[in-house]
Amino acid sequence: MMEFEVVGTVESKFKEPVGPDKMRQEESTIVIKPEYEEGLYRIEDNDYLQVVFQFHLSDGYKLKAPRRHGKERGVFASRSPRRPSSIGITCVELLEREGRRLKIRGLDAIGGTPVLDLKPYASVMDDPKKDSTAKKEETK
Amino acid sequence: MMEFEVVGTVESKFKEPVGPDKMRQEESTIVIKPEYEEGLYRIEDNDYLQVVFQFHLSDGYKLKAPRRHGKERGVFASRSPRRPSSIGITCVELLEREGRRLKIRGLDAIGGTPVLDLKPYASVMDDPKKDSTAKKEETK
Repeated sequence: MMEFEVVGTVESKFKEPVGPDKMRQEESTIVIKPEYEEGLYRIEDNDYLQVVFQFHLSDGYKLKAPRRHGKERGVFASRSPRRPSSIGITCVELLEREGRRLKIRGLDAIGGTPVLDLKPYASVMDDPKKDSTAKKEETK
Repeated sequence: MMEFEVVGTVESKFKEPVGPDKMRQEESTIVIKPEYEEGLYRIEDNDYLQVVFQFHLSDGYKLKAPRRHGKERGVFASRSPRRPSSIGITCVELLEREGRRLKIRGLDAIGGTPVLDLKPYASVMDDPKKDSTAKKEETK
């Protein structure tokens, strides 16, 4: 087991899961704890953030489970919230920062969700189609 | 504090950090623990995976720190391994699965790194340029 910090919380009009597609259409807010506010310095330079959060309502997991509309597959081949490590990651659009409050769009997490980390989206790490050789040339 | 499971470990020729760009050029292997093998069912249907791992050598964190070649910024505006929650995420190419061993390319993590989770890359959650409205239409 590994322990991690909760650095903030999601505020959302969704108080319980209504389906990720619907939640991702909407705006929500991440409120960072006061003791971590300094870590937000210049975050507004980024258009997109990776949000790392906990599926806090998720109770246990199944290693193999059917998809809603498809073939059975393993939990590591699915984005199910019922995972051995109940960690979710979603890329969101950063709309506005006001102090410790980040207004975002695209998060599929309900109000009260604990946020573990925020990272700026970086194509070299996050884009599957990145050409790592080309990227390396660019940074020389 | 939140506790999460270690589901596997990285095997890599890199035994200590040599710079993420260099590491991402190379192949490495994720070895999933036997008790989680069933969770890999059909993972080979995916070309790209999100790897969630722990920066296990990272000791403490700074909320505000200069980048190597740039302006000072907060930890949540950087991909520094020295974070309040020392979680890394990187999108990698899945080259081959052999039982509990996944050969991948693109991971910027050294040998011995604890893996917390694997997820299939999904543009609707991971691609910043996704058009959530269009995606919703598709799934109707």
